[in-house]
Amino acid sequence: MDRPTHGIGSGTTDFLGSAFRDVAHIGHIELLTPRFDQSLWFFSEILAMREVDRDGDSVYLRTWDDYERFTLKLTAHETSGIATVALRASSEEALQHRVAAIETAGRGIGWTDGGHGIGPTYRFTDPDGHPMEIYYETTWHVAPDEALPALKNQAERFPGRGVNARRLDHVNYLGADVEKNGRFVADVLGGRATELIRLDNGRIAAQWFHFTNKSYDLVYSEDWTGSTGRLHHVAFATDTREDILKAADIFLENGIFIESGPHKHAIQQTFFLYIYEPGGNRLEFCNAGARLILAPDWTTIEWTEAERRKGQAWGMKTIETFHTHGTPPVEGSE
Amino acid sequence: MDRPTHGIGSGTTDFLGSAFRDVAHIGHIELLTPRFDQSLWFFSEILAMREVDRDGDSVYLRTWDDYERFTLKLTAHETSGIATVALRASSEEALQHRVAAIETAGRGIGWTDGGHGIGPTYRFTDPDGHPMEIYYETTWHVAPDEALPALKNQAERFPGRGVNARRLDHVNYLGADVEKNGRFVADVLGGRATELIRLDNGRIAAQWFHFTNKSYDLVYSEDWTGSTGRLHHVAFATDTREDILKAADIFLENGIFIESGPHKHAIQQTFFLYIYEPGGNRLEFCNAGARLILAPDWTTIEWTEAERRKGQAWGMKTIETFHTHGTPPVEGSE
Amino acid sequence: MDRPTHGIGSGTTDFLGSAFRDVAHIGHIELLTPRFDQSLWFFSEILAMREVDRDGDSVYLRTWDDYERFTLKLTAHETSGIATVALRASSEEALQHRVAAIETAGRGIGWTDGGHGIGPTYRFTDPDGHPMEIYYETTWHVAPDEALPALKNQAERFPGRGVNARRLDHVNYLGADVEKNGRFVADVLGGRATELIRLDNGRIAAQWFHFTNKSYDLVYSEDWTGSTGRLHHVAFATDTREDILKAADIFLENGIFIESGPHKHAIQQTFFLYIYEPGGNRLEFCNAGARLILAPDWTTIEWTEAERRKGQAWGMKTIETFHTHGTPPVEGSE
Amino acid sequence: MDRPTHGIGSGTTDFLGSAFRDVAHIGHIELLTPRFDQSLWFFSEILAMREVDRDGDSVYLRTWDDYERFTLKLTAHETSGIATVALRASSEEALQHRVAAIETAGRGIGWTDGGHGIGPTYRFTDPDGHPMEIYYETTWHVAPDEALPALKNQAERFPGRGVNARRLDHVNYLGADVEKNGRFVADVLGGRATELIRLDNGRIAAQWFHFTNKSYDLVYSEDWTGSTGRLHHVAFATDTREDILKAADIFLENGIFIESGPHKHAIQQTFFLYIYEPGGNRLEFCNAGARLILAPDWTTIEWTEAERRKGQAWGMKTIETFHTHGTPPVEGSE
Repeated sequence: MDRPTHGIGSGTTDFLGSAFRDVAHIGHIELLTPRFDQSLWFFSEILAMREVDRDGDSVYLRTWDDYERFTLKLTAHETSGIATVALRASSEEALQHRVAAIETAGRGIGWTDGGHGIGPTYRFTDPDGHPMEIYYETTWHVAPDEALPALKNQAERFPGRGVNARRLDHVNYLGADVEKNGRFVADVLGGRATELIRLDNGRIAAQWFHFTNKSYDLVYSEDWTGSTGRLHHVAFATDTREDILKAADIFLENGIFIESGPHKHAIQQTFFLYIYEPGGNRLEFCNAGARLILAPDWTTIEWTEAERRKGQAWGMKTIETFHTHGTPPVEGSE
Repeated sequence: MDRPTHGIGSGTTDFLGSAFRDVAHIGHIELLTPRFDQSLWFFSEILAMREVDRDGDSVYLRTWDDYERFTLKLTAHETSGIATVALRASSEEALQHRVAAIETAGRGIGWTDGGHGIGPTYRFTDPDGHPMEIYYETTWHVAPDEALPALKNQAERFPGRGVNARRLDHVNYLGADVEKNGRFVADVLGGRATELIRLDNGRIAAQWFHFTNKSYDLVYSEDWTGSTGRLHHVAFATDTREDILKAADIFLENGIFIESGPHKHAIQQTFFLYIYEPGGNRLEFCNAGARLILAPDWTTIEWTEAERRKGQAWGMKTIETFHTHGTPPVEGSE
Repeated sequence: MDRPTHGIGSGTTDFLGSAFRDVAHIGHIELLTPRFDQSLWFFSEILAMREVDRDGDSVYLRTWDDYERFTLKLTAHETSGIATVALRASSEEALQHRVAAIETAGRGIGWTDGGHGIGPTYRFTDPDGHPMEIYYETTWHVAPDEALPALKNQAERFPGRGVNARRLDHVNYLGADVEKNGRFVADVLGGRATELIRLDNGRIAAQWFHFTNKSYDLVYSEDWTGSTGRLHHVAFATDTREDILKAADIFLENGIFIESGPHKHAIQQTFFLYIYEPGGNRLEFCNAGARLILAPDWTTIEWTEAERRKGQAWGMKTIETFHTHGTPPVEGSE
Repeated sequence: MDRPTHGIGSGTTDFLGSAFRDVAHIGHIELLTPRFDQSLWFFSEILAMREVDRDGDSVYLRTWDDYERFTLKLTAHETSGIATVALRASSEEALQHRVAAIETAGRGIGWTDGGHGIGPTYRFTDPDGHPMEIYYETTWHVAPDEALPALKNQAERFPGRGVNARRLDHVNYLGADVEKNGRFVADVLGGRATELIRLDNGRIAAQWFHFTNKSYDLVYSEDWTGSTGRLHHVAFATDTREDILKAADIFLENGIFIESGPHKHAIQQTFFLYIYEPGGNRLEFCNAGARLILAPDWTTIEWTEAERRKGQAWGMKTIETFHTHGTPPVEGSE
């Protein structure tokens, strides 16, 4: 069958990992903050996430629509940044296959007990050194009486407060070598690249991977400092674009720094809003409308350096800090 | 691991088809209309679908976001109703597996050449006799110059006209025996039931299946007439709820019969609007917000007869015709 | 100049009060509730109104966008219902003119001191006996530190909580004789009728009046019980229709009875949602989009009984309780 | 009564014209374009305005919700720019009062016959030389059969096409001396200033006036070139913010230059999108939510140069061309 030379599906050959769908989705993350109390206030009061556990320097928080026990482990730390991204496998068998592939790739660390509702968990790192985990067993969340939803097909009641974060959407890492990290995601984790930016010198500047029918779940952007293990942003999905506009007002009233947006990305066409939570980590609030990647053989869309320069979908230039702010900060880079 | 006894995940044991993901998504459908010119006007002018082919009594139309060549084959016929639902397999291997399972189930008809951009296609019926097809090879759509999109990650330009149907969302069949049809979808096609209604007498009155991360793609509702092979409705997804409110105005101005909505379903929580296209077939325009089923082990939510009686999410009683109108019509039933 | 015989501007001759604009807008209302604590919880927690004063059995609450001190005086009482609707005059001179007209009409009661930020206030009743007030002097609201807005052209910070009631929109009275009440509003208060329903027997069943460029501020509907002085509903304006959809979810989660909607009225085309606050009073949340009556010579739109029977704009039948529930309740009428 | 020292109502003393409400609203405008065919395509096809008349080099177009015959007279010309802004008086008496005031101010030109549905019209100029008109008599629009609305309280059927411009919202002039022009609007036309920007040197850089309950209808911004009679932009109101987001997609697909937005202004809090129509004139699409100025004694909000520098409500810096592009263009100024 022919492939189009323009429109969707154009561009490079994809890394067609045979392992596609072994990772079901990103389960939860651990975020670090040097301003713990303020970050906890932000996630609890402004995003309306609910605390389900405390453990040492960490609080476990959940979005109202998460079917698992927790979404975010927030940990007091000397710096900001992302500590762990935990992937849920599609089955016990899929978990074993991915662990084997990770070990073959030489990136495995080993098994832990999990805990806080999570079963046996295998720890590893991507080539950039970001700590990651994969697990299958999980405790389905049972809403306590004070958070019982009106409709039984919902994990917890809708909070009706602040930004009402519904679910984690994606994680965008910074990485020293986007292509190398991308090959790991594709070949070892079974992710598929839906879109990428290729610089004139041939390097991949950013690459979007999906495990689900969402058009991306895990993203790598080139770290301009050459550092490793850093975070560009973590994103939460909203039901509507109006939710994002309302969120902007709420951030404004609460003194939360709005970096950019609301606007629409050309790449992936996501409606977005970027802010910094009090700990300094960049968060995105995003809405993709009805856009899903249903095609099982999607070919990666490739954007050029010139196309990237055009800015966002409706013409807004990409804000400078988008290319200078990451967490933890690197001295002299911002 | 424990499963909750209330909230999400409660209810019956699912039909866990090992074949999950062999069907990638519904590719296209064939709809019959006894008022061809008016139906064609409706799909072309009101839904802003674009004609890509004609063949005998049929016109092939596409939504702007479909990566394949066509979405809807509209065929002049003495009655209304649905002629074919065509499923796209995830791979050539998945196609062969599903065909083998269909043949084992004794529901196979045989291979055809496909055509209009579709490769080899296997025809079969569900237990209710609805004609279905499965295929893998497809021609990726190349937008003609007059429909080139501004953004290369989009199949065709956004029409900016009428309801701007983006993509087919799901098909809701009527069936004489919902449970029997459901077992076929689960065991043979690899669909998974996300929600169902169980009557007090134990019968399943309706059941929602998904092949994707959408919470449903194919639905069976009990046919009150005991007839087989009929259609309850076909649904198109919109990006926002506002799109549905705007659509209601457009239907009002164009004399299209609005049956019910806009409102929000309790089951599946979809924001909906039901209309009848000029040929009499019920269409839904639906928006699920950010709701996706990411869990690989979702347990079917079961609703009781009493719960169904409560009506829709915000309290609207389900309209009577929802239980009396199907296509083709059965004499004396409406 | 010609007037059209169909489309807008058709229908009856308006009561062109020369006093138009002497009443600037509805300033505040007093609502009665037999379930004070629950009603106070509803207005404070669910509508996010802020308490500014207490006095005897009453609490004074304000919406975040009210430029005056308070919007709602909520009073514990043995029944539900509306106690007072207070109109703000456009100037001191306008106040004197309206008071003179009210006295001429024989409906005056006399002056009071006002209080709680309101200056000298003249009390009167409409022909139905609803207690009303008119005043000009008012204290502009100064936001306390904890409610300071980020933008100085806003009365108070956006609460970002629950339904975030922005401002009072309109009051819809029940009245034994709609036409008689309407003549009082038109001739004595200077309101203008923008739309009305005329029954086949010639009686006016409902009539919408405006003092502002909004298409209605004060409405009379015929009381089916023949009682006087009752309330059909009080309405709050939202910025968007999405706010109303979100409100419906919040009411659902909080056990607030949703009577009807969200849907769009044919008359006035308002997007609406009706609920009962815990005290039993019906409240509306409404959005008119960009619809304003800018014409200084608008001719009343007249709807027939047959047109009313068609139901709401998108075809929903008007719910039965809309014609049986008013406050305070009349024994045996619901 | 006290006036607050912060929050709304702060700032300078208003020009309290006793003539407030003599001007009912802006009735229609004449826009000039050096690319007539393309501009006509834009207003007809993209904004879905309907042509009602042709006369010499001009086409008369109407938005679907205008109660008068036409909204926009589009005229082929050697340059872009605004030719006339026509104000509708509130009554015949109000018209005579304003004409007398204009003549006293020495800015009158004289009466014309009107035409195209408009009765006797008095022509004049503001101090900047912008041609203006005022009239009272007008022909109420009667929808032709092909544009009959489904609901009789609507001027014409909703087009359901492109941006569906509903109504003219405001005109923003450029002026050499904002304060002088403002005094004319306030003292002679009866407008009231709701907000203004005062530079550190004391000069007013921009000033917003209203005749209606909308928070502005006519605006003056300082012309950086010192020229007179130029246009900054003309704005159309949309029902929702979603309409503006959808409009941005439609402009993108149709090659219309998007200058800035969608975003929210700090001043007046309007949600906005700025584009250039093919003739070069800047247009705004705006939504104010439920924001209305109901207070009859609103005190002008005054913004400082430092506050203006902060940019728009959600932090976006004001785009440079906003201070360099006006029509007609002045050589060397952009």
